[in-house]
Amino acid sequence: MSSRLTAIYHVRSDARAIESRAQAIAVEQSVEMPLSAIDDADILNEVVGKVEDIADTGNGLFAVRIGLAAATAGDDPGQLVNMLFGNTSLQDDVTLYDAEFPGALVRGFGGPRCGLAGLRRRTGIKGRAFTCTALKPQGLAPAKLAELAARFARGGIDFIKDDHGLADQAYSPYMARIAAVAAALTVVERETGHRARYVPSITGDLDMLRAQIAAAKNSGVDTVMVQPMIIGLSNFSRLVRENPDVAFFAHPALSGAARIDPALLFGKIFRMLGADAVIFPNHGGRFGYSPQTCRRLAEAARAPWHGREGTIPVPAGGMTTDRVAEMLDFYGAEVMLLIGGALLDAGERLSEETAAFVSKVKDYQYAEGTGQASW
Amino acid sequence: MSSRLTAIYHVRSDARAIESRAQAIAVEQSVEMPLSAIDDADILNEVVGKVEDIADTGNGLFAVRIGLAAATAGDDPGQLVNMLFGNTSLQDDVTLYDAEFPGALVRGFGGPRCGLAGLRRRTGIKGRAFTCTALKPQGLAPAKLAELAARFARGGIDFIKDDHGLADQAYSPYMARIAAVAAALTVVERETGHRARYVPSITGDLDMLRAQIAAAKNSGVDTVMVQPMIIGLSNFSRLVRENPDVAFFAHPALSGAARIDPALLFGKIFRMLGADAVIFPNHGGRFGYSPQTCRRLAEAARAPWHGREGTIPVPAGGMTTDRVAEMLDFYGAEVMLLIGGALLDAGERLSEETAAFVSKVKDYQYAEGTGQASW
Repeated sequence: MSSRLTAIYHVRSDARAIESRAQAIAVEQSVEMPLSAIDDADILNEVVGKVEDIADTGNGLFAVRIGLAAATAGDDPGQLVNMLFGNTSLQDDVTLYDAEFPGALVRGFGGPRCGLAGLRRRTGIKGRAFTCTALKPQGLAPAKLAELAARFARGGIDFIKDDHGLADQAYSPYMARIAAVAAALTVVERETGHRARYVPSITGDLDMLRAQIAAAKNSGVDTVMVQPMIIGLSNFSRLVRENPDVAFFAHPALSGAARIDPALLFGKIFRMLGADAVIFPNHGGRFGYSPQTCRRLAEAARAPWHGREGTIPVPAGGMTTDRVAEMLDFYGAEVMLLIGGALLDAGERLSEETAAFVSKVKDYQYAEGTGQASW
Repeated sequence: MSSRLTAIYHVRSDARAIESRAQAIAVEQSVEMPLSAIDDADILNEVVGKVEDIADTGNGLFAVRIGLAAATAGDDPGQLVNMLFGNTSLQDDVTLYDAEFPGALVRGFGGPRCGLAGLRRRTGIKGRAFTCTALKPQGLAPAKLAELAARFARGGIDFIKDDHGLADQAYSPYMARIAAVAAALTVVERETGHRARYVPSITGDLDMLRAQIAAAKNSGVDTVMVQPMIIGLSNFSRLVRENPDVAFFAHPALSGAARIDPALLFGKIFRMLGADAVIFPNHGGRFGYSPQTCRRLAEAARAPWHGREGTIPVPAGGMTTDRVAEMLDFYGAEVMLLIGGALLDAGERLSEETAAFVSKVKDYQYAEGTGQASW
């Protein structure tokens, strides 16, 4: 038997129909044609998807495990997700709940190049969670965004990411923004000794993404944010391989449209392709993820996995400083807390509110030994 | 007021909550922060999304029209879809139902370079629908796929596309497959005078896609298939702009029917970015699209639109020859019928079954004047 990957689908079905429905998915996600028309024994034995298990999870849902030939995915991330969910994404009785990958596949893609441990080394931040905020709103010119970044930095924040709406717009071109923000943060570093790291959002086709990463590096920026489901997983993986010295934050934009479980998509697939940090909507914010989904996601991102680095979970989406302790109780120290709008809402007191957020994270009583493995 | 694009969301809500929910979406898809923290009048007036209308469509659903500043999307297709649905895709009470684009935006992306009219000119096929089939299963070596292609071509088929599972796998490398299939079709053309067009599926990152298009052109192939939601919309658009002489079939893999309406995604967005043909699951096949969705999709793809070419609808997904008349009644002549598995199921009689499919399409009594506009 050749190397297999396993997809776990959640299928809405009644008990009488589930066996034939599971078999239909196995065919759809592999040969996509009547098996009666296949006379090649190798294809029937190796390439056709195999239903390995069907479990009734209650509420009319079944967990269906299907084995797929790893050779059909090859080494292209786009083809991998195509084999896992390409056509079945169009059938609304099915979600892709999880997947298990052969170790060789995971090691081949390589995982985070920097990751949890690397980001601690690079920043010198130990024994506590990371802090992050967001530059917005879109519509501001580079000088205004740089001014905002400087005020966040004076509050002692670790990372300042672009709002995912900032791209290469006429009113705020990427190249001008990068230069202005990086320069502003250097000024604050000279004043205060604190270096906040800027995380620009890079967008566009692969050529544009490459040019934007090069410009970021030229400005002394060592971390960028990408939207993997918009730029395409193959391009994301290519950027990671070409830039092992750059840390990549993955943003979840457009990830909801695909009906792929976020613990799998962010915690495993984005991690496998090299996300050093994964931003996702925390429970209790503006989005609908449950605490259980958030926990599964964070565990998948940080668990030991074929010798690859861990990825930092970044719960976000409407968070506030008064939730810091609760979030650290929930996620522990190996997390990056991201508060954007709530800090911006402080207006003139932005640096002070940022400092209050940072203090809460620094002063939290972390459980003994928390996260020591990566420090 | 600067140029606006309009997104139409379908939102599940109760009547009392819908106004505040609509306003929250308008903020989420634009500035993504508390409006109280914005003091720039231009941003408040121009950049913040505006709820333009809320209509109760029944069944607990509301159609919410939101105006967004076209400047936030700029000229990058990835950023456009990010502005339309990036974060809101993560909120499962909302689907993106439709969008209206400024003419300048549509003309800027350019639409199909070949399109319905171009594909008729290029092939000389007039007054009837196009026919298409699929090479599969994956797992076959290039020589076997080429043999299959030759048998389809002897049946008189117009287009032979790769199964979307065929990529650049070790057992059937793209370059070897292209060369073998193109050569086989040339042999059949010499024998029979009929030239079937091969439509290879191109995959991977932008560099790989470019190399695969170049190889296709070198083998005399003038049409390729892409999976826009997997390769990324920005890369799709880039390929179209770089290859105005190549016709592009768009495959719906990973398009996740449930959240972005397929009439918008395939009929408008893929068309705007340059899809010459859009493959989609026909009603009554293996997938869940309704006749109404299929009709809206086909109409969007072919309707006059800012002077751009029409895109050919390609209903597929479990079609059979005995549905030809019904499909032509439904779609008219400006369509490409795609039958894959059902022809392959004929085994030794594959060429004859293909010929029967082609005859049914040729012999159908098309309504007078059907599609004359594009012939």
